[in-house]
Amino acid sequence: MESRWETGRTEAFSDGVFAIAITLLVLDINVPESDYEDLWHGIAHQWPSYLGYVTSFATIGGLWLAHHGIFRRIQYADARVTRLNLILLMIVSFLPFPTRLMSETIRNSDAETTAAIFYGTTLLAISVVTWALWQTVARRRELLRPDVTDEEVRAISRMAAPNIGGYAAGILLARLFPQAAVFAFLITSIIALIRARGAPPENPVRQRHSGTIA
Amino acid sequence: MESRWETGRTEAFSDGVFAIAITLLVLDINVPESDYEDLWHGIAHQWPSYLGYVTSFATIGGLWLAHHGIFRRIQYADARVTRLNLILLMIVSFLPFPTRLMSETIRNSDAETTAAIFYGTTLLAISVVTWALWQTVARRRELLRPDVTDEEVRAISRMAAPNIGGYAAGILLARLFPQAAVFAFLITSIIALIRARGAPPENPVRQRHSGTIA
Amino acid sequence: MESRWETGRTEAFSDGVFAIAITLLVLDINVPESDYEDLWHGIAHQWPSYLGYVTSFATIGGLWLAHHGIFRRIQYADARVTRLNLILLMIVSFLPFPTRLMSETIRNSDAETTAAIFYGTTLLAISVVTWALWQTVARRRELLRPDVTDEEVRAISRMAAPNIGGYAAGILLARLFPQAAVFAFLITSIIALIRARGAPPENPVRQRHSGTIA
Amino acid sequence: MESRWETGRTEAFSDGVFAIAITLLVLDINVPESDYEDLWHGIAHQWPSYLGYVTSFATIGGLWLAHHGIFRRIQYADARVTRLNLILLMIVSFLPFPTRLMSETIRNSDAETTAAIFYGTTLLAISVVTWALWQTVARRRELLRPDVTDEEVRAISRMAAPNIGGYAAGILLARLFPQAAVFAFLITSIIALIRARGAPPENPVRQRHSGTIA
Repeated sequence: MESRWETGRTEAFSDGVFAIAITLLVLDINVPESDYEDLWHGIAHQWPSYLGYVTSFATIGGLWLAHHGIFRRIQYADARVTRLNLILLMIVSFLPFPTRLMSETIRNSDAETTAAIFYGTTLLAISVVTWALWQTVARRRELLRPDVTDEEVRAISRMAAPNIGGYAAGILLARLFPQAAVFAFLITSIIALIRARGAPPENPVRQRHSGTIA
Repeated sequence: MESRWETGRTEAFSDGVFAIAITLLVLDINVPESDYEDLWHGIAHQWPSYLGYVTSFATIGGLWLAHHGIFRRIQYADARVTRLNLILLMIVSFLPFPTRLMSETIRNSDAETTAAIFYGTTLLAISVVTWALWQTVARRRELLRPDVTDEEVRAISRMAAPNIGGYAAGILLARLFPQAAVFAFLITSIIALIRARGAPPENPVRQRHSGTIA
Repeated sequence: MESRWETGRTEAFSDGVFAIAITLLVLDINVPESDYEDLWHGIAHQWPSYLGYVTSFATIGGLWLAHHGIFRRIQYADARVTRLNLILLMIVSFLPFPTRLMSETIRNSDAETTAAIFYGTTLLAISVVTWALWQTVARRRELLRPDVTDEEVRAISRMAAPNIGGYAAGILLARLFPQAAVFAFLITSIIALIRARGAPPENPVRQRHSGTIA
Repeated sequence: MESRWETGRTEAFSDGVFAIAITLLVLDINVPESDYEDLWHGIAHQWPSYLGYVTSFATIGGLWLAHHGIFRRIQYADARVTRLNLILLMIVSFLPFPTRLMSETIRNSDAETTAAIFYGTTLLAISVVTWALWQTVARRRELLRPDVTDEEVRAISRMAAPNIGGYAAGILLARLFPQAAVFAFLITSIIALIRARGAPPENPVRQRHSGTIA
């Protein structure tokens, strides 16, 4: 007596949240008026904002690819998948807050360690919940489309682990070198984005079909 | 001579408003610069913001599930359904304002009662309009897909009532204990989110078909 | 040698802009901290913000219904339709600025007339461009789906005129009574929203078909 | 062993980012309270904001048309296309920052040159990445739908070049005449928007089909 959700609206709603969270990040980038005298310097001085922008953008971009890879293999979502997805969206739309906090404090020796750990923990939470989402689906094969192979299931499972390791290592690093830790988050998020490429090719026939239900 | 609206664009537009309202909530979370000296304390001190964020997120998330459950059973929407839906969207996109007001005043003895009642009333209004939307559909069976059973109609009707009761009880509680009232709103919204699971399973064949019109 | 655009992405993109413009309106509603002592009064004191919120929401809501009515009758959009639609979106996403200006100045005798005229002109521009969009489509029948009747074309044409009249009358009124003028805009936008109901019923078969390409 | 992505969600996600970036531009337009005494003058005094708003809106609007033209000719996207698209989205959602900086400093002789060059460089980057996206697709014919002709491929390739030239010329001009440079950006973006009309007509049969996978 489980309820089943078609995935079309779930994907559309998730994409909406991803797109907005990614776009709101820019609202926190500002050059103070006192820097207008030497504006190139003022623009350059905002580097922590760009670092946060690119890291959070790459994280959400990589998540979007992973999410896409998960949901196009799902036949229907049960209540557990739907709720895990809502928790994931709640963390993603929270991300602009730790991103902004990190950007504002990374050059402040009192606050930078805390802010880097807080930021990294949010990024880690996104990776862990994405992994949990896929594990939930992978363990209940009836949620998957019939043509998804065991090999595909394992390949996607393998994609999540290194991201979790990268963010966790960065959080440890933040206790000593908070700025280096944020660069570690950046590198982890970019690697996650690139590795999403590793998903096996799909059957073009399913492609075209899955297009009609996108 | 009623007009009929296909539901595809209504769902997409509603999802857009839900996704944006949910995501804008984070813009109101801030740690003041004076708290940078002890940033963990400063982050923890923002707990009313997180409480409001999670409560409003869970409310919109639960609404999204309920809305999804309603519209996938609708064959076409008439003018009354379309207008009720616009009123619902107007309240949802208003929600960030009472959420922010509650977060900012919940530790201010002058304002906390008023802010909690104002917040709870907005949450209640969302529940009531959602319930009214479903009642409108349920009473005009020609709006429903032919394969929706009476049992399903009753099951969805039952889902709305407890939320309305929870929010109303919270509003009463707010006159004496405004902080407790906000926790009551949180619990109500989480229960509403979980209970959305109770919708009966669907016919996979309809699933796949309804996918094509998502 | 005209280019033709399928309407699916145009509708989705327009819905996105409508949904965001409608949702951003709430960011401009605020109770100043000095009003926390008597918060009910402080909330009530923001009435010009609610007036602007509801008026702009109803305008965009009514526009969304009209836009929906236009595009579901379009077979494909040519370059002129696509450009007019972009101009329409540009004015819609501009709307939060005059709305905010009106809300902030409507009790300021120096500024209220100007702000009401500026606001009304933006609302009028939305109506006029929507009307121009439909006229462009109506005059080139090859853009319309073959089953759209002349009666439908005339019915939609008739819907636009009174809105234009209402906003124009409000602008004239604003020179003497700016507050009354804003209420006239509110009433015009609500009537426009309700009148959108008057569109003739559609063939359910086309409904279902048009669903698949939504 | 390349991965393939269906384009439906890519288009929806991109449209979401475009719609939000376009709509956030208005948040940066403000009349300071000190200008309420002579509000028409205060509104007019914000002309750099309107210039930035229209220029950035036209740029994103033109990009949306070009993006639409590219993706409706794509059968499936490979990893390279998907990553280039994410880079494009990252620059587009960054655009509100240089737009705001230009609007705020264009009448400040210390900062205007820098701000105009920074703004133009962002616009140029959007054009270049869009061009690179199309080149990537055009060189791998298996990514294209089989019915796309060589003539269409060349026509789309030709569309990108003048925009790149216009923005580059504007950047050079900005060293001497920053205000004129911004007008050059405006003209370039409007021409890009109008030239998107030049795409060859499509087969109505494919139109209807491509509608179903939008």
